[in-house]
Amino acid sequence: MTTADARTPASKQNDGTPDGAIPDDGAGKSIGWHKGYVQGSRPDLRVPVRQVHLTNGKDVTLYDTSGPYTDPGIDTDVRRGLAPLRENWIIARGDTEEYAGRPVRPEDDGLKHTSPRGGLRNLDAVFPGRPRQPRRSRDGRPVTQLAYARRGEITPEMEYVAIRENVEAEVVREEIAAGRAVLPANVNHPEIEPMIIGKRFLVKVNANIGNSAVTSSIEEEVDKMTWATKWGADTVMDLSTGRNIHTTREWVLRNSPVPIGTVPLYQALEKVDGRAEELTWEIYKDTVIEQAEQGVDYMTVHAGVRLPYVPLTARRKTGIVSRGGSIMAAWCLAHHKESFLYEHFEELCEILATYDVTYSLGDGLRPGSIADANDEAQFAELRTLGELNTIAKRFGVQTMIEGPGHVPMHKIKENIDLQQEICEEAPFYTLGPLTTDVAPAYDHITSGIGAAMIAWWGTAMLCYVTPKEHLGLPNRDDVKTGVITYKIAAHAADLAKGHPGAQEWDDALSDARFEFRWEDQFNLALDPDTAREFHDETLPAEPAKTAHFCSMCGPKFCSMKISQDIRRQHGGSQEEIEEGMAEKSKEFAAAGNRVYLPIAD
Amino acid sequence: MTTADARTPASKQNDGTPDGAIPDDGAGKSIGWHKGYVQGSRPDLRVPVRQVHLTNGKDVTLYDTSGPYTDPGIDTDVRRGLAPLRENWIIARGDTEEYAGRPVRPEDDGLKHTSPRGGLRNLDAVFPGRPRQPRRSRDGRPVTQLAYARRGEITPEMEYVAIRENVEAEVVREEIAAGRAVLPANVNHPEIEPMIIGKRFLVKVNANIGNSAVTSSIEEEVDKMTWATKWGADTVMDLSTGRNIHTTREWVLRNSPVPIGTVPLYQALEKVDGRAEELTWEIYKDTVIEQAEQGVDYMTVHAGVRLPYVPLTARRKTGIVSRGGSIMAAWCLAHHKESFLYEHFEELCEILATYDVTYSLGDGLRPGSIADANDEAQFAELRTLGELNTIAKRFGVQTMIEGPGHVPMHKIKENIDLQQEICEEAPFYTLGPLTTDVAPAYDHITSGIGAAMIAWWGTAMLCYVTPKEHLGLPNRDDVKTGVITYKIAAHAADLAKGHPGAQEWDDALSDARFEFRWEDQFNLALDPDTAREFHDETLPAEPAKTAHFCSMCGPKFCSMKISQDIRRQHGGSQEEIEEGMAEKSKEFAAAGNRVYLPIAD
Repeated sequence: MTTADARTPASKQNDGTPDGAIPDDGAGKSIGWHKGYVQGSRPDLRVPVRQVHLTNGKDVTLYDTSGPYTDPGIDTDVRRGLAPLRENWIIARGDTEEYAGRPVRPEDDGLKHTSPRGGLRNLDAVFPGRPRQPRRSRDGRPVTQLAYARRGEITPEMEYVAIRENVEAEVVREEIAAGRAVLPANVNHPEIEPMIIGKRFLVKVNANIGNSAVTSSIEEEVDKMTWATKWGADTVMDLSTGRNIHTTREWVLRNSPVPIGTVPLYQALEKVDGRAEELTWEIYKDTVIEQAEQGVDYMTVHAGVRLPYVPLTARRKTGIVSRGGSIMAAWCLAHHKESFLYEHFEELCEILATYDVTYSLGDGLRPGSIADANDEAQFAELRTLGELNTIAKRFGVQTMIEGPGHVPMHKIKENIDLQQEICEEAPFYTLGPLTTDVAPAYDHITSGIGAAMIAWWGTAMLCYVTPKEHLGLPNRDDVKTGVITYKIAAHAADLAKGHPGAQEWDDALSDARFEFRWEDQFNLALDPDTAREFHDETLPAEPAKTAHFCSMCGPKFCSMKISQDIRRQHGGSQEEIEEGMAEKSKEFAAAGNRVYLPIAD
Repeated sequence: MTTADARTPASKQNDGTPDGAIPDDGAGKSIGWHKGYVQGSRPDLRVPVRQVHLTNGKDVTLYDTSGPYTDPGIDTDVRRGLAPLRENWIIARGDTEEYAGRPVRPEDDGLKHTSPRGGLRNLDAVFPGRPRQPRRSRDGRPVTQLAYARRGEITPEMEYVAIRENVEAEVVREEIAAGRAVLPANVNHPEIEPMIIGKRFLVKVNANIGNSAVTSSIEEEVDKMTWATKWGADTVMDLSTGRNIHTTREWVLRNSPVPIGTVPLYQALEKVDGRAEELTWEIYKDTVIEQAEQGVDYMTVHAGVRLPYVPLTARRKTGIVSRGGSIMAAWCLAHHKESFLYEHFEELCEILATYDVTYSLGDGLRPGSIADANDEAQFAELRTLGELNTIAKRFGVQTMIEGPGHVPMHKIKENIDLQQEICEEAPFYTLGPLTTDVAPAYDHITSGIGAAMIAWWGTAMLCYVTPKEHLGLPNRDDVKTGVITYKIAAHAADLAKGHPGAQEWDDALSDARFEFRWEDQFNLALDPDTAREFHDETLPAEPAKTAHFCSMCGPKFCSMKISQDIRRQHGGSQEEIEEGMAEKSKEFAAAGNRVYLPIAD
């Protein structure tokens, strides 16, 4: 968070939006918030911000992930998709080319074994936006932000995230070049507003969406994506496993302002009708290219689940709980061979490098219960991920490392410390961790606790957990609750890390709270709608009553007392008393209206 | 948590209760859970437990705070109150006497300035239960659990908590004697089921209730209390500030199975019509005696807010946010005198010792925002609390120390470390702390994070925060959400501290999860109702589909794969294959049906 004064906001007033903006107060001063932009070094580099206008005349500028959807000046249409913000930047680099691409096949949508009963392709579902050809490296050399950073280039994407993070662009370049941060930005996903994942930057939050065989439509998934980013999701993973996987992803990608991650293994498994042993490197590779051509920004690859590690899970309380991990374990066991992902890892690196797909090296052997935390299977895989990280870097592929899972508080720090050591400080991307298993229906909280802690200690991105974890598929409310919970964890970590500017947000809200500026509190809140709703539910309208209900009866109570105090000090006539109070009042104003300032003895 | 085998449960079957119990399954085996009792050394010492019956025939015994209300064999009636469980123990000690007590006056219910318009005493509200006379020390010497522990006595109360905590009674006595734990148990509150607060024991959770001038009735407050204890509240604080304070408290006390805490200053302030400067030691003392006679088990006393500390809050972002703290600060300023609580502290000790009221030394200068955490005002008061703790101990009064508040994660540990050092390991009792200020409406979560951490590091009891914090008065749902969130924090801390037996609960639930025993997962959950509801919301009934939705597709998926594996290993005829599978199946059963156990290579 920064105060707006630091940069030039190319603000676009947004009083008409239903989300928290409040119309002109009649005195010509607008209050509430609007979508603003901070102008970069080139006309097409404008970084979106949430500009909160306080009733005391000050402005607070907050990081904004909501994309063009919250800009009333932009006419969005999910059937057309978002504007390709980065297209010119990508073309201008001159290192990529358009090509015909891999033809889309019915089995890409899970329709290999189409039955007359319901497998017919729904042509209406095909994304109707502008036709596009995929793009890839012109000469096979990496076209990754890592490669550019190593060459000393500050790309527009790097400048963009530098403005977002309020740091120098050179810091961004250095962190990427050193492999301590990733900027996921597939050349085929020009729609994204660039963001960065690394421990020197704001802690990020990922939200999972995804259809399954029996529930959820394409529209719902697109809606979940925009909903998640509205509340602050920095990236979204599409974990669809049902029908229309390819088509759903196309809609999501074309409409997403944030990087999209996937687990290609899920779609590959659908292509072999769920029979893990029928998976092959060829089918997997084909799926990765399919997804890379669509524009997937990062891919979870469970290449660390090696054959010799599977027996290490034998004595576990909850075995292998990662879906990708168990698919690969089953393949290894079925063939009694080393994982094809591990064996073909270098070839995979070559592919990802030509699109700038970022690795998210999956922790297929993560613990699924408190009992299994930090065991040999988990750390054996982590060591392999360290080895793969080194290989990926050699190929110029940006890489982050996934982490657990279910870990009691006293075992959390070992996870981040080991990961940072083994993986040369590559960004850690953890799921929670859940700090206890006894609270199904509240695992956003059991895991939010662990997430805040591990982020404080250096985790760069947190994968959210919703209240439905372990119980069912999250609905819209669950997605929101999960995102908000994780934004809390991320921001609490930003504070604890002393991230520059993080505390200004808290301070602005604390000031508003102390001065009973309720509307400012709402507009500064992570979730203005619910804060306002809760307040209106029990608090009567009259200001005098709000003090009574508020847990901080301090200010109003003490203002009164201070007046009485002055009266006693000055004694005498009504005139003298009023004179004394006027004097105190001036002191107040001079000191910024802080009630307690003038009390000093 | 313990497995039931360790003790003799005098179980009372409870299949008829609506709360999670499931009727006989038709095969004569009851599943679900019931209220059980563990028998102590005397017939009238029976410790309640929640006995969960798993579908695999095992039992899990959980700590139970819900009181007689969840025992269908006990006919409870809020107009009669609970049975005085401890009465005979108290009488048998022979060190107390009944006496006439202080007469109840209209102003005890805030009716000093009764107006015809609505201040008339509602006689119907007077608690109709059995008449009782208050009890106090016969000779003025302390009748506290601390005094008994120091003399080497193991009281029935101590034995009771030893059974609850699954430790030796001598450990309980030692911890109390050393001042490292408190067992709040006013001689006038014989209804409670004793519990202990100390870092060597399970982390406890307090829930606040309390009416205010314009909302909430006596019935509602009693209902909130039973509701809070049903979900796991270990103590309840009645923070009423409106009318009928005395009478509400009487109803709450007579019906409460858990210790009740109050802030006597709130009622005292009502007695002087909210004019802090009119407070006197005499009015305060009278209120303390009034409440002690009723049976309040612990009292928050803001005796650490000394005159010289008030100016230290002058430069704070949010001044003094503790209601009690600001009342005392106002009094000190108004009179320019040292706090009457500080000046009369020894006299107050004498009073509390004669009823065994436990001190909860209030942190009136706790920080109200991230910006104010760990400042000079806060720590100056803490040092005074350390001094007062020593005095209280000299008078034989059990004492715990209250802590913040709003503290970013990196400043939390300093709070518990300093408190433990300054207060000679007296139990720390903290409110959260909230780890960020930017999420009003989610402060159960911002504070649950801090609560889990500070409890791991040694805090003995956590005061819950509800989603309505800073915004309004909590309703029933908010109370439940607050309690569940804090039970998560407390249990996560128990796990991290390696509390004996804590992990068995998680392990039982993890096992149930891995084996798809859904009913067992629900019955073991902190909130079985919501877990079941979430499951039913999205998961179809057929077992085959549950695996698909569950995030742990592992087990079913891998069972299938293992069969295929055997098939490959054994090859040949159908008969040979079946023989191999039967063999594997036996291995499975022998190894406790753990899917992964037999896979080892």
